[in-house]
Amino acid sequence: MQRAGDPPARGVFITFEGGEGTGKSTQVRRLVERLSASGIEALATREPGGSAGAERIRGLLLDPDHPRFGATAEALLFYAARADHLETAIRPALAAGRWVVCDRFSDSTRAYQGALGKLNGEVVETLERMVVGNAGPDMTVLLDLSAETGLARAALRRGTASTDGFEKESLSFHRGLRQAFLALAAAEPHRFVVVDASVDMDAVADAVWTAVRARFLREAASV
Amino acid sequence: MQRAGDPPARGVFITFEGGEGTGKSTQVRRLVERLSASGIEALATREPGGSAGAERIRGLLLDPDHPRFGATAEALLFYAARADHLETAIRPALAAGRWVVCDRFSDSTRAYQGALGKLNGEVVETLERMVVGNAGPDMTVLLDLSAETGLARAALRRGTASTDGFEKESLSFHRGLRQAFLALAAAEPHRFVVVDASVDMDAVADAVWTAVRARFLREAASV
Repeated sequence: MQRAGDPPARGVFITFEGGEGTGKSTQVRRLVERLSASGIEALATREPGGSAGAERIRGLLLDPDHPRFGATAEALLFYAARADHLETAIRPALAAGRWVVCDRFSDSTRAYQGALGKLNGEVVETLERMVVGNAGPDMTVLLDLSAETGLARAALRRGTASTDGFEKESLSFHRGLRQAFLALAAAEPHRFVVVDASVDMDAVADAVWTAVRARFLREAASV
Repeated sequence: MQRAGDPPARGVFITFEGGEGTGKSTQVRRLVERLSASGIEALATREPGGSAGAERIRGLLLDPDHPRFGATAEALLFYAARADHLETAIRPALAAGRWVVCDRFSDSTRAYQGALGKLNGEVVETLERMVVGNAGPDMTVLLDLSAETGLARAALRRGTASTDGFEKESLSFHRGLRQAFLALAAAEPHRFVVVDASVDMDAVADAVWTAVRARFLREAASV
């Protein structure tokens, strides 16, 4: 039982992963709203970025006016941003008892830079141990969607009505990305919850909420 | 013997290390001039920075308008810059047969972030293997100077005539820095040349040139 003067119980750290058009940022917002309605304060954040220093690094990574960094430099920049995000935003929030809900985290680096990039998976895992260690997410929601549907949704969001502009290479890339995320989920079934993101966003939000309650809130209620 | 059409022999990679006021940038320039007078083309470069991407990261690291990054993020940013510098500037120059002379390299990270910083030395060595591997310098010139003299010279350069402005903490930091560099040199005697930087800059340049000739140019002449 929590007593006055006790340090607050550590918050819960939840990440959302998935390809383009799977609705990650919408579902982060929906989950934070539901937590708030249940009296749980949660920080909504994102990667790369999420803290002042990490957003400056994000600016380097995504600047369209400069050539992309090489694979190793890029991975180091992602993890430099993640180190700053963890140190200045995520860990302090969790230590203060707040929950943290993050749009993308290490699994995106594993999928994009590791499985589909030019980077040796061992490099990503070495950086992961160095920067994240055992401070990783308590739960990761993978929003799973076919590459075709995800790309069509992303195209709609950008204002093009069809996927004609996407090359076959892009479709093949997004199929590989989906498989990479599903493989990560299969390797860590206790951390991952795979949610079908092909249904409407209310149904997805309900599925996420059911999983979060089952994992973290019913347990608390039964104590 | 080099024949027409053969790929050029790989260039030699030389780094200069040492604390503030030891004359690294002057000696880099002097060595490149002497190499040029001997018919050897050399790239003068520096860290952090030395390539377009790395200079952008340098801007993040040294920006006085933002708080300094934490120890881990900072080391990752240094190595991201080093990865870009190696990939886009140093390795191409060496492969084309040019020499590379660099003002600071990994030993500065080992001394500042490792020995004197808050960072576990193992983190630096893991990043070193990941990014540099066996592509490190063929020779490292340590410009060795007492902390008192180095700080007095650095103060003169900044336009203050005495070291009154420096706190004892700073003097103690620079003494530790000198010891950290000397320990690195003692651990790798085949790579390091320790040069007394307390004498005038012509005498230092002569000592550096003697060491470079003995190691790389007499060998070539005797073939």
